[in-house]
Amino acid sequence: MTDFAKIFSPQEYSRRLRDVKQRMTHAGFDIIICQDPANMYWLTGFDGWSFYVPQCVLVHLDEDAPLWFGRAQDAKAAEVTTDLPKQNIVPYSEILVQNPDGHPYDELAQLVQAKGWSGARIGVEMDAHYYTARCHQTLCGYFSENQVVNNQDLVNWARLVKSDTEVEIMRTAGRISTSVMNAAIAKIASGVPENEVIAEVYRAQIAGVDGFGGNYSSFCPLIQVGDKTSTPHLTWTDASLPDSALAMLELAGVRYRYNVPLTRTVHIGRAPEKARNLANIIVEGVDVGLDLARPGNTCEEVEAGWQNVLNRNGLVKESRVGYSIGVGYPPDWGERTCSLRTGDKTELQEGMCFHFQSGVWLDDFGCAVSEPFVVTENGGERLCDAERGLIEID
Amino acid sequence: MTDFAKIFSPQEYSRRLRDVKQRMTHAGFDIIICQDPANMYWLTGFDGWSFYVPQCVLVHLDEDAPLWFGRAQDAKAAEVTTDLPKQNIVPYSEILVQNPDGHPYDELAQLVQAKGWSGARIGVEMDAHYYTARCHQTLCGYFSENQVVNNQDLVNWARLVKSDTEVEIMRTAGRISTSVMNAAIAKIASGVPENEVIAEVYRAQIAGVDGFGGNYSSFCPLIQVGDKTSTPHLTWTDASLPDSALAMLELAGVRYRYNVPLTRTVHIGRAPEKARNLANIIVEGVDVGLDLARPGNTCEEVEAGWQNVLNRNGLVKESRVGYSIGVGYPPDWGERTCSLRTGDKTELQEGMCFHFQSGVWLDDFGCAVSEPFVVTENGGERLCDAERGLIEID
Repeated sequence: MTDFAKIFSPQEYSRRLRDVKQRMTHAGFDIIICQDPANMYWLTGFDGWSFYVPQCVLVHLDEDAPLWFGRAQDAKAAEVTTDLPKQNIVPYSEILVQNPDGHPYDELAQLVQAKGWSGARIGVEMDAHYYTARCHQTLCGYFSENQVVNNQDLVNWARLVKSDTEVEIMRTAGRISTSVMNAAIAKIASGVPENEVIAEVYRAQIAGVDGFGGNYSSFCPLIQVGDKTSTPHLTWTDASLPDSALAMLELAGVRYRYNVPLTRTVHIGRAPEKARNLANIIVEGVDVGLDLARPGNTCEEVEAGWQNVLNRNGLVKESRVGYSIGVGYPPDWGERTCSLRTGDKTELQEGMCFHFQSGVWLDDFGCAVSEPFVVTENGGERLCDAERGLIEID
Repeated sequence: MTDFAKIFSPQEYSRRLRDVKQRMTHAGFDIIICQDPANMYWLTGFDGWSFYVPQCVLVHLDEDAPLWFGRAQDAKAAEVTTDLPKQNIVPYSEILVQNPDGHPYDELAQLVQAKGWSGARIGVEMDAHYYTARCHQTLCGYFSENQVVNNQDLVNWARLVKSDTEVEIMRTAGRISTSVMNAAIAKIASGVPENEVIAEVYRAQIAGVDGFGGNYSSFCPLIQVGDKTSTPHLTWTDASLPDSALAMLELAGVRYRYNVPLTRTVHIGRAPEKARNLANIIVEGVDVGLDLARPGNTCEEVEAGWQNVLNRNGLVKESRVGYSIGVGYPPDWGERTCSLRTGDKTELQEGMCFHFQSGVWLDDFGCAVSEPFVVTENGGERLCDAERGLIEID
């Protein structure tokens, strides 16, 4: 399949919608409004770089199909990328784009009222990136107090267990991710400007593998060099790579909108023994965690297995060691649901996917060797196949 | 300059802060809270891919420097990329990241109270992409009704007129943009998969020109082919380019975080006469608009000049024909301030920058030949130098 949407069968979309409606019934909602582009995509197939203006998918318990609500000039994109019935694609007036005197959600609220749903219990995504304070304030102005409430990421939770088709896509994204990491490592050398490494990363991300093209990732590729390895979200510079230094790379392969992130640590020039040892401990910890990633075990049990290996070696990692992954749009590839951390008692099921973000930061240096994986009967199946341990570059 | 921040002089940051404080006084605010990453960058130099969690820059009228407030693990990035005094970098607890039971803005509100600013008049960015409904709800919980109100994009408006240093950066970004467009056009040919064109676009974006490295753009590169040219925000597929078709490209060159977007229309194979004619009318309209883009004229006068040329040729463009540009982060490179459209009476000043997004969509095809420009005494100075008109590719 090389074109838009129609990647998933109508049956898969029906199954997703049915699951979401059950969750809505359970939570007491007649309507949910989903502005998270990942939720919009997962529910309908809608895809385009239009999430910089208000847009959403609305699910009503009694309606056969979701409604798409968005900017007039993007309605055609909804026709191209979804199988929604034409009357379910509802454009709002162009004049409302970035207008201090009116907001698209005025028209959304009026649509809800015109449909006769004025009394509906409405769940919104209070902490989704693009659901701004103004979106919420506008919407609430049309309904009673406490009628519009947080749906607690209801659709994000529904996305947690992947179908067979989704797992296949994640595997392809994982192959792209491996290929991107290998391209980055092949480019890294003393004297090469950081931005030239990243240029190669982007090229490989989009070129994809074996005719499976890549898509844009939800984070930009990250590289930190030398003492900047102590902070995780800095982006590249024009500086040339030094003769001897540690460098961390975090990047993703993406197929359709499914992101598979991967982290590796390299050393330009011969690495100190202690860095190599730390990398080996990390890999050992990951393998213990992957073995525990079976149906019936919990998120925190996987984390405990990893943490045990660290503790045995006199180390500790305070923050979570992983999070669920799948569909993602900028600025985040995490699903914002369960995490591999103490206290998270979510029970693993086959088809859940995680990024095992296994890194340890010491006072003077850090090291990360991550593994994205899918939960199977036999434990976590790695989605990538990049060299592990500390990678030394001559 | 190849490393982080320190791109702008301390004097430039002081001037920016002084201007913002004057606007605050005029608007009646003691404090503004800026979560828009572009505003955070412009006020302090802070840069990193951490805007997927709540973070902000807080400006208080009586304080010498802004406060940076963000996730603990990103505080080091604030030290690396800004010159803020150490005590002005305030980390929040890691446990509050994506936590249903607590929010980073609980700690932000407590910080404001602890500083003795409980009675302050607080302006927030109600419609900034990352200022979510939950951020606002959390913050408002600590203050009186109507104490926390919309600051109406106060800092975005302060960014409108660029300094000489900023204009120089925009010129460099424009050179990158030209180079990226040329790389895309060189790659386009019948039979080439769309994603391979985009892979080349990304490579060129990051490679930059003449040792000036590029940065990630606020939109992903856009390509629409054939009948998909009728909707503007679709992204690429794996499909091979056909033997004969119209294709539109919209992309940007980025230096530091300054985005210069550019649109061109190509025809694979010999183009129909009417498409070439339309492109020529567009270029004529742009040139009239550029000539009008002088200090003292208004945004709507520039638009009227362009629209006159269209009308003379029996054409019309309903939507705005341009918007201000400068610092941008995903998902948008527009500054969300003034637009080249009827009714916008903003008076042009030297150093304002715009994307003249000159496209016309007819029933059966569309064409866009845009020009990013900076306002000068002699009219709009083009920031790019890519081939104009309809570009035919053998």
